[in-house]
Amino acid sequence: MNAGADLTLIRERKPLVHQITNYVVMNETANATLALGALPVMAHALQEVEEMATAASALVLNIGTLSDAWVESMVLAGLAANRAGVPVVLDPVGAGATTYRTETSRRLLAELRIAVVRGNSAEIATLAGRSAQIRGVEAVGEAGGPELAREAARELGAVVAVTGPVDHVSDGSTVHGVANGHELLGTVTGTGCMSTAITGCFLGVRGDDPLAAATEALVAFGVAGEDAAKKAKGPGSFHVALYDALYDLDPKKLDSRAKLS
Amino acid sequence: MNAGADLTLIRERKPLVHQITNYVVMNETANATLALGALPVMAHALQEVEEMATAASALVLNIGTLSDAWVESMVLAGLAANRAGVPVVLDPVGAGATTYRTETSRRLLAELRIAVVRGNSAEIATLAGRSAQIRGVEAVGEAGGPELAREAARELGAVVAVTGPVDHVSDGSTVHGVANGHELLGTVTGTGCMSTAITGCFLGVRGDDPLAAATEALVAFGVAGEDAAKKAKGPGSFHVALYDALYDLDPKKLDSRAKLS
Amino acid sequence: MNAGADLTLIRERKPLVHQITNYVVMNETANATLALGALPVMAHALQEVEEMATAASALVLNIGTLSDAWVESMVLAGLAANRAGVPVVLDPVGAGATTYRTETSRRLLAELRIAVVRGNSAEIATLAGRSAQIRGVEAVGEAGGPELAREAARELGAVVAVTGPVDHVSDGSTVHGVANGHELLGTVTGTGCMSTAITGCFLGVRGDDPLAAATEALVAFGVAGEDAAKKAKGPGSFHVALYDALYDLDPKKLDSRAKLS
Repeated sequence: MNAGADLTLIRERKPLVHQITNYVVMNETANATLALGALPVMAHALQEVEEMATAASALVLNIGTLSDAWVESMVLAGLAANRAGVPVVLDPVGAGATTYRTETSRRLLAELRIAVVRGNSAEIATLAGRSAQIRGVEAVGEAGGPELAREAARELGAVVAVTGPVDHVSDGSTVHGVANGHELLGTVTGTGCMSTAITGCFLGVRGDDPLAAATEALVAFGVAGEDAAKKAKGPGSFHVALYDALYDLDPKKLDSRAKLS
Repeated sequence: MNAGADLTLIRERKPLVHQITNYVVMNETANATLALGALPVMAHALQEVEEMATAASALVLNIGTLSDAWVESMVLAGLAANRAGVPVVLDPVGAGATTYRTETSRRLLAELRIAVVRGNSAEIATLAGRSAQIRGVEAVGEAGGPELAREAARELGAVVAVTGPVDHVSDGSTVHGVANGHELLGTVTGTGCMSTAITGCFLGVRGDDPLAAATEALVAFGVAGEDAAKKAKGPGSFHVALYDALYDLDPKKLDSRAKLS
Repeated sequence: MNAGADLTLIRERKPLVHQITNYVVMNETANATLALGALPVMAHALQEVEEMATAASALVLNIGTLSDAWVESMVLAGLAANRAGVPVVLDPVGAGATTYRTETSRRLLAELRIAVVRGNSAEIATLAGRSAQIRGVEAVGEAGGPELAREAARELGAVVAVTGPVDHVSDGSTVHGVANGHELLGTVTGTGCMSTAITGCFLGVRGDDPLAAATEALVAFGVAGEDAAKKAKGPGSFHVALYDALYDLDPKKLDSRAKLS
């Protein structure tokens, strides 16, 4: 893992990160992507998703406000990304909250080769076949812990990142804990979706090592959250400071600030 | 009316507020909901709205960027909410501006049991069968006054909240005036929609008394607006400060700051 | 050209600017429109776009997240605007990045009478039949220069505004260069879309002279960007300050601050 070096690569190469995501956070994930140093593009039409995904360095699929036409686009884009060797990260927003979300997440996992799944403990537990409590898109109750990440990774055949007070990232054998972040992240909608978009940015330069990419992304996003919290008086000012902090992330200090376990 | 106690309940219970709303303000109403202390969830697919609305503590329907598929989802979600005893608040954005918006608002009012309708004076006057002037989604001309709220509540069979420089909330007999707020609220898009979402939050803990819930919501939102204005240099900084202010609302001081008539 | 006087007109008349735009920037372009002093309205349903466009003072078409239903709405709205003498500005977001975007832009230009096309150098070069490099929705490589604007204006039969470090606006004979702006504009998503919305605002009071309207809009937006940059610590705080700056634009100083060539 070398978060600083990969952040530098992102800023040099500006990987194009194609995002088919939910209406609530489109502006936010685009701005987080741009602030970090990569290039976001949103496109969901059946006529263009294959072309766009093929041209991209990473594809982000997020089911936060799904509907049938969008799911078809996600499948088409994902298949094109798979053919082109473009890594795919999935954010199964609200899996467990409704049957439709659970089944759509399972379908995407079945039909596509997913590099990383990033979700909260309830979403990941649902997909791993464990019992979970979710209210809307918010996990309720105990955090997942390293075992959830490891088991889900084995079950789903993908690197799994379970975010919470401490994040856990696993490829089914190794588990990285990331304790960076700040509780204000939970007061702004879409910060989970942003962390998925940032994972896409790191996958855009480290598609060969999704475990490293996902871990580095959570370190970078968590450190930015820590920096933003210092300037914040509440959710609104934190949200604004978060983009400034992503933009200001210092690659030279990133690895020394990582709180890994 | 006890705005402070109900705000405390919101923060303790974190009611899930299911919102089927317009593309322009989704992020904003989600963040306002979260900053106040409730849990937002956006879901519009026909396959899941009934499940989500049934699991929610309140349902917000907002026609700001409507289309046929979304209207069908609103009806389905509303019927499910009605069956489950989940209170519904309607924001008839732009009623009067186009025939489609007026007719859709009327249809939702006819097919669903709506607890609260929250709109500007032109939208409410249109639905109450009065003449009104609206440009886009902005009311033009005189404010509604208490009589509009009272008559509309009788006509529509719901609590009606007419917002403006002074808000008026009525169940058809009692009328509460709420003079909290700040003119900067008019410089940010979606603040009306946010006040509807906040109404949903209060309905989520006071579904038994929609007149109180709607009035308390406008007090809370207005007080937050006043606090935000103190930190603002214009619409952008006001918008940011508004989330901080919602998050910082002090339940112990809320009722004493209410400007009721 | 008289940017100050036309800004004053905007604030007096509050032209209604109907925007059929992309999901990513809807909130942002609505807020920019409102901060400047005009009235935004978003509406895309086939049932209402003709009514709304006819009632508006300008129509903004932006293909940033297009799909078939939205394209049909744009055509319907555009035809209604043309019949009613309402000026239309087109933002061909991502033309050149996918075939679908290029062809949709061409279709809108063929079927509608477009007053102004506002895009980056790659989008405009693509539509003018030149070779161009675009990654996602970002122009790569050399800026367009005055010749691109002039030639594209002739080719497309519309005023063309090519934005970049220096903007160039042309009606096919005259070319105005606008050097206002700040590099932080490139770190926030949707600032190009905002400049198109602002163009719509100026067209709403200067539909008789689209070359002047487009140039004035870029002066106003660029000056606001300069003001915002003074308060900004990064993309997030710049974004916020941009709305404050649009709101604070001083009509009396606007023309003297224009960096025209």
